[in-house]
Amino acid sequence: MSGSVHQSAEQLAHALAEARRGRDEGGVPIGAALVVDGEVIAVGRNRRVQQNSAIRHGETDCLEQAGRLPASVYARATMVTTLSPCDMCTGAILLYKIPRVVIGENRTFYGGEDLLRARGVDVVVLDDAECIELMTDFIAREPGLWNEDIGEQ
Amino acid sequence: MSGSVHQSAEQLAHALAEARRGRDEGGVPIGAALVVDGEVIAVGRNRRVQQNSAIRHGETDCLEQAGRLPASVYARATMVTTLSPCDMCTGAILLYKIPRVVIGENRTFYGGEDLLRARGVDVVVLDDAECIELMTDFIAREPGLWNEDIGEQ
Repeated sequence: MSGSVHQSAEQLAHALAEARRGRDEGGVPIGAALVVDGEVIAVGRNRRVQQNSAIRHGETDCLEQAGRLPASVYARATMVTTLSPCDMCTGAILLYKIPRVVIGENRTFYGGEDLLRARGVDVVVLDDAECIELMTDFIAREPGLWNEDIGEQ
Repeated sequence: MSGSVHQSAEQLAHALAEARRGRDEGGVPIGAALVVDGEVIAVGRNRRVQQNSAIRHGETDCLEQAGRLPASVYARATMVTTLSPCDMCTGAILLYKIPRVVIGENRTFYGGEDLLRARGVDVVVLDDAECIELMTDFIAREPGLWNEDIGEQ
């Protein structure tokens, strides 16, 4: 697992492709990828709309797609996500002791990064222009859906 | 919504029934119920085994069964769970700003109670003998499955 910004940006492309797929399905455009030993072993995207789901955020959907894994695999994993992880996804990362998180952007939403760092997780924020644009457009277009997704009125 | 210990124990019965159902299915015996305005609107149970799921813990399964809800409903809800919530389930409770959590027991596993309290959630621990017995038996019988469920080696 490399910590270079170049490799992180390459990994982000997989999560971003999922986010765009979610947008094209009429969903919340947030995607994620789980990378282990340099390989993408699963991708996922927010499926609130597509599956009428309250728990399928980008990261949790990605973990579900990855399937049941032993702790030894999570211990070598990086969670890549287009957006700063919400409290639930932060908790999922902590539950499985995933040591590294790559975040596309945290301007449109600031999630549990401080808690992740406090618990020893290596957090990298790429401040990616395409991730910012995707969320900015979505929030302007669907404020009600976005508020529902983050538990706001 | 009443905060009385008597009503909390009644609410726990719904979560406990789900935990027993999970045990009878060969699963991790943890159950949950979401109570709004005194009514149980959804129940759930850990489905790691039953659905090969990495994200269906008792509380998250319960939130999924409850469906997509506006923040105003979560704001009046109590999450009832047979076991102290793990980091992921703690995060799900925080995401949806559920103001009260009733926990059957926290002797066999101590989850995110401190974080919940620090974030203003009212946490009640019932120290229920049946919940303790259910988990003690399960952990003795299936240590590997239990460790997988909490992300331990």
